[in-house]
Amino acid sequence: MSFTDMGNGKRIAVLVSGGGTNLQALIDAQNAGKITNGRISAVISSKPGAFALSRAEKAGIPSFVIGRSEFLSQREYDAALCSLLRENGADLVVLAGFMVVLGPYFCGCFKDRIINVHPSLIPSFCGNGFYGLKVHEAVLERGAKVTGATVHFVNEITDGGAIILQKAVEVKANDTPESLQKRVMREAEWELLPRAVSLFCEDKLRIEGQKVNILL
Amino acid sequence: MSFTDMGNGKRIAVLVSGGGTNLQALIDAQNAGKITNGRISAVISSKPGAFALSRAEKAGIPSFVIGRSEFLSQREYDAALCSLLRENGADLVVLAGFMVVLGPYFCGCFKDRIINVHPSLIPSFCGNGFYGLKVHEAVLERGAKVTGATVHFVNEITDGGAIILQKAVEVKANDTPESLQKRVMREAEWELLPRAVSLFCEDKLRIEGQKVNILL
Repeated sequence: MSFTDMGNGKRIAVLVSGGGTNLQALIDAQNAGKITNGRISAVISSKPGAFALSRAEKAGIPSFVIGRSEFLSQREYDAALCSLLRENGADLVVLAGFMVVLGPYFCGCFKDRIINVHPSLIPSFCGNGFYGLKVHEAVLERGAKVTGATVHFVNEITDGGAIILQKAVEVKANDTPESLQKRVMREAEWELLPRAVSLFCEDKLRIEGQKVNILL
Repeated sequence: MSFTDMGNGKRIAVLVSGGGTNLQALIDAQNAGKITNGRISAVISSKPGAFALSRAEKAGIPSFVIGRSEFLSQREYDAALCSLLRENGADLVVLAGFMVVLGPYFCGCFKDRIINVHPSLIPSFCGNGFYGLKVHEAVLERGAKVTGATVHFVNEITDGGAIILQKAVEVKANDTPESLQKRVMREAEWELLPRAVSLFCEDKLRIEGQKVNILL
């Protein structure tokens, strides 16, 4: 296995499980020159047939499949994923709709170098059980009028890491979970994720406790 | 004691404890003709010296003081407040920085007719212990990049009632709890509260479970 050679920029590994729309947002941003000092070096999918893999292929990005069920324990899975990423020199790990839980071992391997995009304004509608459409279902059930997306560093606590960027999105009167999910992606996730990735690659993010300071 | 005669509009009682900036926002909106089919009929303060009382006097609105410490139990306090408001025909009770807990008896008296403004995007940074500056301190401590305000109906659960309106407000890099509080007031609370009050008075709010539908 080999990753794309990056030159001097940071090597970005993107972990996916499904359609890969956030991966596409990163590829598009990269093609538009919006990711400074970094380049997507690998796409890793937890599922063999994920459409994200086709997106990676089309963009000429090496891709790998590493399923959770191939490993007996969380620790073994974490170790295998960590080895793969380390061997190939990943500087940043981006969770872009990655549906497998990562354990403390993996979080330790890439401490302060894993970022995730979550489809709500953390600390609302986050934590265990809040993923994908379930988040938007909960927003509508609570009758919230504003939701949004959050890009954050990943630590051992689900959605508990320091927040990098957030953007609010209006909930509309006739929204379904599906329509709300699409609007949050279009108006917030696809904008925030490439921006946060570029800020990381430019070394402009400073974590202080739970707070991320962005250098100007 | 007597409240101002209202004609045919809804009678709005505003409950306060302190400076009364949200009361002022309501008075200003009323003077600007932005509250349709309703009028502030009384200001009730839990504290004798509250500056909100001066605002009421200046605006020619009858005011009353009813302190929690004058009553032995929550139930007695609730009953006294409820009697005062009922005798004088209040249709809507607005909590505008009212720092006294209201019990189930009071909530039952004015079911679906009490609204509150909370300085965050519920369900973030709300519930017991989250009031005033404490809310903004928690927002900054969590490192959130977006906060806001919520106007909601009040039920027995602190900040648990159905949400009427929400508006997001950006957290800035150098914010203190005080600077953030001011921005949330200026950009969200003072705009949302009069709008929600007017929608109530125009009978345009429909509660369905946890959701408020706004009629156009």
